[in-house]
Amino acid sequence: MNRTHTNGALRIGDVGKSVTLIGWVAKRRNFGALVFIDLRDRTGITQLVFDESNADTIAAVRNEYILEVQGTVVARKDKNPQLDTGDIEVKVETVKIINSAKTTPLIIADETDALEDTRLTYRYLDLRRPLMQKKLMMRHQIARSMRNFLDSQDFVEIETPMLGKSTPEGARDYLVPSRVHPGSFYALPQSPQLFKQLLMISGFERYYQFARCFRDEDLRADRQTDFTQVDIETSFLNDVEIQTMMEAMMKKVMKEVKGLDIETPFLRLSFEDAMNRYGSDKPDNRFGMELQDLSEIFAHSEFKVFKDCLDNQGVIKAIVVPGQATMTRKEIDKLTDLAKKNGAKGLVTLKYKDCKLEGSALKFFDAATQQALIEKLHLNDQDLILIVSDAWERTCNVLGALRMHFRDVLQLVKKDTFSFLWVVDFPMFEYSEEDGRFYARHHPFTRPKESDVPYLDSDPSKVRADAYDIILNGYELGGGSLRIYDQQMQEKIFAILGFSEADIKERFGFFVDAFQYGTPPHGGIAFGFDRVAMILSESDSIRDVIAFPKNANAKCMMSDAPTPVDEVQLDELHISIVQE
Amino acid sequence: MNRTHTNGALRIGDVGKSVTLIGWVAKRRNFGALVFIDLRDRTGITQLVFDESNADTIAAVRNEYILEVQGTVVARKDKNPQLDTGDIEVKVETVKIINSAKTTPLIIADETDALEDTRLTYRYLDLRRPLMQKKLMMRHQIARSMRNFLDSQDFVEIETPMLGKSTPEGARDYLVPSRVHPGSFYALPQSPQLFKQLLMISGFERYYQFARCFRDEDLRADRQTDFTQVDIETSFLNDVEIQTMMEAMMKKVMKEVKGLDIETPFLRLSFEDAMNRYGSDKPDNRFGMELQDLSEIFAHSEFKVFKDCLDNQGVIKAIVVPGQATMTRKEIDKLTDLAKKNGAKGLVTLKYKDCKLEGSALKFFDAATQQALIEKLHLNDQDLILIVSDAWERTCNVLGALRMHFRDVLQLVKKDTFSFLWVVDFPMFEYSEEDGRFYARHHPFTRPKESDVPYLDSDPSKVRADAYDIILNGYELGGGSLRIYDQQMQEKIFAILGFSEADIKERFGFFVDAFQYGTPPHGGIAFGFDRVAMILSESDSIRDVIAFPKNANAKCMMSDAPTPVDEVQLDELHISIVQE
Repeated sequence: MNRTHTNGALRIGDVGKSVTLIGWVAKRRNFGALVFIDLRDRTGITQLVFDESNADTIAAVRNEYILEVQGTVVARKDKNPQLDTGDIEVKVETVKIINSAKTTPLIIADETDALEDTRLTYRYLDLRRPLMQKKLMMRHQIARSMRNFLDSQDFVEIETPMLGKSTPEGARDYLVPSRVHPGSFYALPQSPQLFKQLLMISGFERYYQFARCFRDEDLRADRQTDFTQVDIETSFLNDVEIQTMMEAMMKKVMKEVKGLDIETPFLRLSFEDAMNRYGSDKPDNRFGMELQDLSEIFAHSEFKVFKDCLDNQGVIKAIVVPGQATMTRKEIDKLTDLAKKNGAKGLVTLKYKDCKLEGSALKFFDAATQQALIEKLHLNDQDLILIVSDAWERTCNVLGALRMHFRDVLQLVKKDTFSFLWVVDFPMFEYSEEDGRFYARHHPFTRPKESDVPYLDSDPSKVRADAYDIILNGYELGGGSLRIYDQQMQEKIFAILGFSEADIKERFGFFVDAFQYGTPPHGGIAFGFDRVAMILSESDSIRDVIAFPKNANAKCMMSDAPTPVDEVQLDELHISIVQE
Repeated sequence: MNRTHTNGALRIGDVGKSVTLIGWVAKRRNFGALVFIDLRDRTGITQLVFDESNADTIAAVRNEYILEVQGTVVARKDKNPQLDTGDIEVKVETVKIINSAKTTPLIIADETDALEDTRLTYRYLDLRRPLMQKKLMMRHQIARSMRNFLDSQDFVEIETPMLGKSTPEGARDYLVPSRVHPGSFYALPQSPQLFKQLLMISGFERYYQFARCFRDEDLRADRQTDFTQVDIETSFLNDVEIQTMMEAMMKKVMKEVKGLDIETPFLRLSFEDAMNRYGSDKPDNRFGMELQDLSEIFAHSEFKVFKDCLDNQGVIKAIVVPGQATMTRKEIDKLTDLAKKNGAKGLVTLKYKDCKLEGSALKFFDAATQQALIEKLHLNDQDLILIVSDAWERTCNVLGALRMHFRDVLQLVKKDTFSFLWVVDFPMFEYSEEDGRFYARHHPFTRPKESDVPYLDSDPSKVRADAYDIILNGYELGGGSLRIYDQQMQEKIFAILGFSEADIKERFGFFVDAFQYGTPPHGGIAFGFDRVAMILSESDSIRDVIAFPKNANAKCMMSDAPTPVDEVQLDELHISIVQE
């Protein structure tokens, strides 16, 4: 098969050339004695014209047949500006049917009304849609761009084990029974964290890996059984140096993949600021509607809800939604539900109309307070004011969720705008009242900020970590940290996390041992690559940038995996199924 | 930490510069009041000189401490031509100890006498040895070179699922119990074969992937639980076009990684020729000692062994080993053992000394036969002649194994010479007398040669496949084929392989279905990437080019995986352990 051109290639300058094309029939129209066929491949579409001489050969040809045609390029009378090849068509002289096709269960076009189940069952046809092909090709382009950058900075890609050790902490492991070691199991990696740190101890200095990682968690819209992580680790660099390098990488990616020049350095927000201003540790700063603190205004309020909150070291915050004072009772109820879903006990709503505040809570606020509110919030006519009073982190999170809700509902941002930023100075620990212990907010290998080390003994909750997240458009693209590199500090952190010595020895023994033999200062970052591809390809779901994803039930609709297996297989693995 | 140079960078032209270096202490020598330290990083070693001013600071410094030093580059009196930096040394002004180190359980140097168990237990130290670092860096360089080539040819890298469906045929699957679907299991992929073919049906046209693949087989020196496959698939290309593309890729790799110009096109040998001449379907043609056919010479022999063999459609073949007529009885016995290990019933040995043949079998051969042998084999004084008589394939394999034995024992090839070739025209099927059925020699999706299609009905054993292996120095680097692209042919092949319709439907149903919707002619190849890296880095084992390999018992010596897991984990997965 010797085609001369792909179907996206021919232009007006090619008129008169004899060409050979191969592709799928995207559309067929009869027009008198002529037949027009759109021939498609991954590069585009070329219009073919058949006259009577080939009528018999193509009589049976329908959509998705594969044809090889030879013909001459001619100028089109009615140009099609939608197509790159829209100025020309190919007058076919000879045609060969390479393969036939049944009617497809979904239409092969960018627009589809097929159910997601159908799309996943016939994924090979869903992926034939040009839109889907472009998404996966862009995913590749992003990976290539990242790799080229990392290679240019002397990074070495190193593959780490897929069959590792189960160390239950955090997410659930996927387990793999061992045939050779009865009763023992491998775990699929949740991340190459220990291995990448060991590679620094080995002296590789700059490592990366596009690593497949696995977490057996309940699936959500943007979760899969496994995901691809761009795993990066460096020695001898500080946090700002690592961040600067990653900014340069993303700048290159945005230029090469999206044709956009983005500004560096990125904005850096402390965790505290991000929460206070945007109600999120992954803020979308492409629009305003920032959180406002009202604690001072209500410092002496007799309104019981606010008073109790402030008495319990809580805060009172608000966002102002322009033009939404027209909301009905029902719509407000829905907002309250959303607030509650995010952990709020309630939502106080006010409206500002004709220079006056309205709302059922108003009766608790005296005139001075009302005036203070109007001034503090710079209210405009028809503003809707949403107030939450609760513990600091919860208050921020609830208002942050409401803020994002209005971003989408009011379409406050354009899909094709991109805003990167860093969130830094994360707290090192998170205290679980339920479990009565501290958990590592990032992971147990994160280095505490030098200045906060004294608090490790006095008040661990005050310790901030040398950790940083890279945020794009309200999504966490990746997160990283500087790592602990001395054994005493690592053991201290393990102790704060409540790991017993036996625990540490069994789970991380070899790792802690390794610290004794000359460990360099090191740190890194890991990007959620599926998410990067999703955002840059302007997709709504990571399933759109994964060739063969599982459905929300962790099933492959196409192959039906997971499935029951032969008894023989289980016997060899020394396991049996426990019936419920 | 702001170093100005890496430890492999400084040259005589840098003399006089003030520099800052960071690295590991590779060696420390006291010389009067001076201390010399070799400072190492992944790029090389720089010699440091400390005078008394820093004596206190470095008093405790031992091997593998990490130092940051600032000093001045000076010319060395006694140059060290072994080192790139051997013309200079750095006179240290200030020094900072970044981290200390205990005595390492293995010496950090290219030469090591550490046991493999020690190396694997302390792999992070083993990988600190410059030799090992270079191997993994070369692995990366090969991958990068391949990727750059494939990208330049418009290939798209697409990741395929890690959690797939178990389709027992061939090697054993690693299974992953599903928590969400009690009693069901995912299988880790043995290869992305079905998915890459589906991607061709999707119209991606040129796909590749560095894919992790898993086979639960008993481990050997060059096997691991999982391996990395460079998986490649194309549409609309024929076998020679695919091969030519792969030759261009390997030419680029050899140039960029080894600095060698290799000749293309590669030699192409049919399976039959490869077996007849080299006794192997992956011949090392860097040395002679080719197999000679003696069936004609012994056509009328009364020697019972030979007569029986020929009567049973067997063949008689020999190799001639120059200069080995000096072998003792004992040494010959060992050769016979090796032959038997490879399936021979026996080995006939002759020696050629002073123009005369010697050997216990000689009494069965008349003078004319002896003379014919001497002429046919072009014997020289002190030649050892090894003769095997058996079924064709077995005879070839036994002599091929003996030939490779002498390659290594007599050191007939140099490690740094590289000979690529293709083996083509493989038989489509292999008949198993034991199971009474045909097996696919490549895999069930391989296209039979157009010319041999008629034999599918009359005599499947005669059918050759459009399959090809790429061979380097006697190793199979990779194998590929053109694939079947029509449903009827695929079903016919499944039928010859003895799959029932129910079988096909259950195991490959979705795949066979996919063929109905416009499948392009397609074919590809898969490289065993660990093996490519092993050969190009001139290593003896694939373990040397895998960062954290399992031992021969499928265990990670470092983390101890696989291990027992919590009862809770098993409960969640609806499985229990069966005690023996």
